[in-house]
Amino acid sequence: MKKTAVDLNCDMGESFGRYKLGLDEEVIKLISSANVGCGFHGGDPHVMRETVALAKEYSVGVGAHPGLPDLLGFGRREMKVTPEEMKDYFIYQIGALKAFVQVVGMKLQHVKMHGALDTMARADEELTKAMCEATREISPGLIWLAHSGKGKIAESMELKVVQEVYADRAYNADKSLVSRRLPGAVLRDPKEIGARIKQLMETGTISTIDGNTLELEFDSICVHGDTPGALDMVKTIRGILVDHDVAIKPMGELI
Amino acid sequence: MKKTAVDLNCDMGESFGRYKLGLDEEVIKLISSANVGCGFHGGDPHVMRETVALAKEYSVGVGAHPGLPDLLGFGRREMKVTPEEMKDYFIYQIGALKAFVQVVGMKLQHVKMHGALDTMARADEELTKAMCEATREISPGLIWLAHSGKGKIAESMELKVVQEVYADRAYNADKSLVSRRLPGAVLRDPKEIGARIKQLMETGTISTIDGNTLELEFDSICVHGDTPGALDMVKTIRGILVDHDVAIKPMGELI
Amino acid sequence: MKKTAVDLNCDMGESFGRYKLGLDEEVIKLISSANVGCGFHGGDPHVMRETVALAKEYSVGVGAHPGLPDLLGFGRREMKVTPEEMKDYFIYQIGALKAFVQVVGMKLQHVKMHGALDTMARADEELTKAMCEATREISPGLIWLAHSGKGKIAESMELKVVQEVYADRAYNADKSLVSRRLPGAVLRDPKEIGARIKQLMETGTISTIDGNTLELEFDSICVHGDTPGALDMVKTIRGILVDHDVAIKPMGELI
Amino acid sequence: MKKTAVDLNCDMGESFGRYKLGLDEEVIKLISSANVGCGFHGGDPHVMRETVALAKEYSVGVGAHPGLPDLLGFGRREMKVTPEEMKDYFIYQIGALKAFVQVVGMKLQHVKMHGALDTMARADEELTKAMCEATREISPGLIWLAHSGKGKIAESMELKVVQEVYADRAYNADKSLVSRRLPGAVLRDPKEIGARIKQLMETGTISTIDGNTLELEFDSICVHGDTPGALDMVKTIRGILVDHDVAIKPMGELI
Repeated sequence: MKKTAVDLNCDMGESFGRYKLGLDEEVIKLISSANVGCGFHGGDPHVMRETVALAKEYSVGVGAHPGLPDLLGFGRREMKVTPEEMKDYFIYQIGALKAFVQVVGMKLQHVKMHGALDTMARADEELTKAMCEATREISPGLIWLAHSGKGKIAESMELKVVQEVYADRAYNADKSLVSRRLPGAVLRDPKEIGARIKQLMETGTISTIDGNTLELEFDSICVHGDTPGALDMVKTIRGILVDHDVAIKPMGELI
Repeated sequence: MKKTAVDLNCDMGESFGRYKLGLDEEVIKLISSANVGCGFHGGDPHVMRETVALAKEYSVGVGAHPGLPDLLGFGRREMKVTPEEMKDYFIYQIGALKAFVQVVGMKLQHVKMHGALDTMARADEELTKAMCEATREISPGLIWLAHSGKGKIAESMELKVVQEVYADRAYNADKSLVSRRLPGAVLRDPKEIGARIKQLMETGTISTIDGNTLELEFDSICVHGDTPGALDMVKTIRGILVDHDVAIKPMGELI
Repeated sequence: MKKTAVDLNCDMGESFGRYKLGLDEEVIKLISSANVGCGFHGGDPHVMRETVALAKEYSVGVGAHPGLPDLLGFGRREMKVTPEEMKDYFIYQIGALKAFVQVVGMKLQHVKMHGALDTMARADEELTKAMCEATREISPGLIWLAHSGKGKIAESMELKVVQEVYADRAYNADKSLVSRRLPGAVLRDPKEIGARIKQLMETGTISTIDGNTLELEFDSICVHGDTPGALDMVKTIRGILVDHDVAIKPMGELI
Repeated sequence: MKKTAVDLNCDMGESFGRYKLGLDEEVIKLISSANVGCGFHGGDPHVMRETVALAKEYSVGVGAHPGLPDLLGFGRREMKVTPEEMKDYFIYQIGALKAFVQVVGMKLQHVKMHGALDTMARADEELTKAMCEATREISPGLIWLAHSGKGKIAESMELKVVQEVYADRAYNADKSLVSRRLPGAVLRDPKEIGARIKQLMETGTISTIDGNTLELEFDSICVHGDTPGALDMVKTIRGILVDHDVAIKPMGELI
């Protein structure tokens, strides 16, 4: 069945002090949900406040984007963290962002893991549970944003799950993304990406890197805003959706 | 008029990673309110969770104890921070602690500045306002814990203020504490401290370092738990209060 | 007397992890001395190695650019640091950079304070002495790079001093830079800057903001490479120098 | 052949800011080589200077004890760091400590990995090589301090290697230490430890946890000084050595 609405989510608020990352002021106008850095892998209190203000101005749903305590590695290096530590890191970071969100009269919408947490979560169920527990304990109303097909543990813990797809990444048969190190992992041709999105919206399927057809449940498409090229891609994706009469709405309004 | 109840507050939760600070497990049994480090000058997510759990176990009121982003200096070195930065630091830290408090079903009780913030706030009204604004925006129900006579700005901003005295510190005529660098600044004789507390509870006055009598409004006495000697002093103070039929209650129950 | 050679120095190596700052790869080709961040206010071990490699490739003299332990504030916020702490921060940072320099077979050339250290040093002679002591103890051969007229303490401590001027900044009568907050503090007109440099090189004088003529001793001109506009300015300055047959050499070769 | 001299090495200088770790002032009197924290997992510039001063006072050899950039985890959590990053971390940390050592007129003696680096190095030869490369490039005279039998890579890279044994830890047949999580991993009985040391010094062998006899080459014994109990153990070990006419000397004097 043809989808008539979808969420566009994007990482934001990952600048730190004098260091600026991403074209947040531009990309915010194009998306419907923002995954906001919480000060561990990126983001700082000032950046968090400004990002939340931007989200409010453009009616974009705000999610926490907690990461590893590794600013130097931007949270992209796996660390041997215990589930207990992980849970505490999530409560701390989500709590901090939630305060900025509440102060402007909004509600925190969702939580999405950052960087190496994704890899770590896939390798260790206890870590995933710890993150989900933190999320649910902070508020049972928080949405867990997961890769399509990868939200089972969150669901089993009674979290609302929204699934996302990557329009510009190739998929393996097991619904995982093709590693960035392999050729063909990242798509750059707007036409090809347009065709994928059309197929996704109309049939709920995507072609895998080995040429098969994969069914993917999703309510959100993940986009990037860290380079001018990435921003153009978001405009392209948004244009395709608009052309197909697909409404772009924060994930919280879709479930 | 004789006081029949008072709060005992103490800084806690300022350990970090493998570094342990303070005899939290002991002092928690003796006090009624804990000022908990929030990860900037001291404290980390793990320590925060454990400290909140201790507070819950012993029915101790939990306050946020935000500090400067200077772990190396333990938040004791003045930094030229703008009011806007300060407000953001407070929202971040209070928000993070609030999450740990809510997760165990408690309510955050109060906020108390840490370390050099006290000096900075006295020198710059805008900084004080920024901290108070952050506190009130997070929740108008939060108590602002201030030195006796020093809570005027917080009051003018419609925050509930609880005033505190230091039983083991000498006072100047203007209600400020005598600088630690001066002789006689810190009292160590249990008898003398006992006499001061008796006088405080019975008459609401204290003798200044130059021999005059100072009226001090207060609902809380600040104690320390970072050394075995400090802990003994808390026991002494507590004993004096109990001997005088003074109830020891979290500040939130006193106003 | 007309100057026939001058050094061009520029801050570099202030990126951190994924955060990129400055057009180091471009500006390195235009200058003769680099002030390299040492990991406190900016810079990290990876960035330091890469910056030193660039400097070696283009025969640029390498200096340490130590800062306050305040990455969040980029070392631009004054902190109440003791002279003893300051000396230790300098030894640590200069030592770390020196290792990267030695590993590629170069010699560390100079030391230049970063950010708020400049303001702090002017207000507190003991702090200046502490920084100079650290520099001299690490190596008596290290050059202390100072604002023109501001290197007296370093000289009195038997450090070799090189003085610098800012081609794009207005001067007060006391040889201090006009505060950035005041109008006219920063010059942007290439013609005007060209005229100033010509005057500086030919007569050793500069016009102050109130229209007087100031004599300025110098062997180095400080330039900036953190924006495309700044880079263009460096090109302009370099062009003017070349047009006037002024050789551009690392400060270590000028004294 | 009976050994007539041995080095006693101990981790030191791992305090941070207000956080104190270890009984450095006591243990320094009992050992001959100190592995000094370099500010990543523990230690700070102030602590480094004080530790080096202690080492100088008691004629103890100073080694760098570099760790992962994870103060929160005390460098004990494995991180996915590339060999290139690791090399840079080593150059930075060793360089910083070397500066403090040179400033007091001493020479840096050795390098010893801290915490999780040991595990990571065993699992990844490229990481070990990166650490050794950094060490050798800083100075070919630096000693690489390795577990007995585990210094092959360092040797192949032309580093001088000193091997160490743990007097209070049980050994597996492959010369690895029995994991702390297993029963019997840590020995606490002074008599038993005394017997082990006697056997080590007289025959160069140790009994493994499964009762076999293992030959262990070594010139250094690693001891701990982080608790009063640990300190007593060092005194015991030292006493046994003295009783057996074994001289205790910095490793640099033994090879």
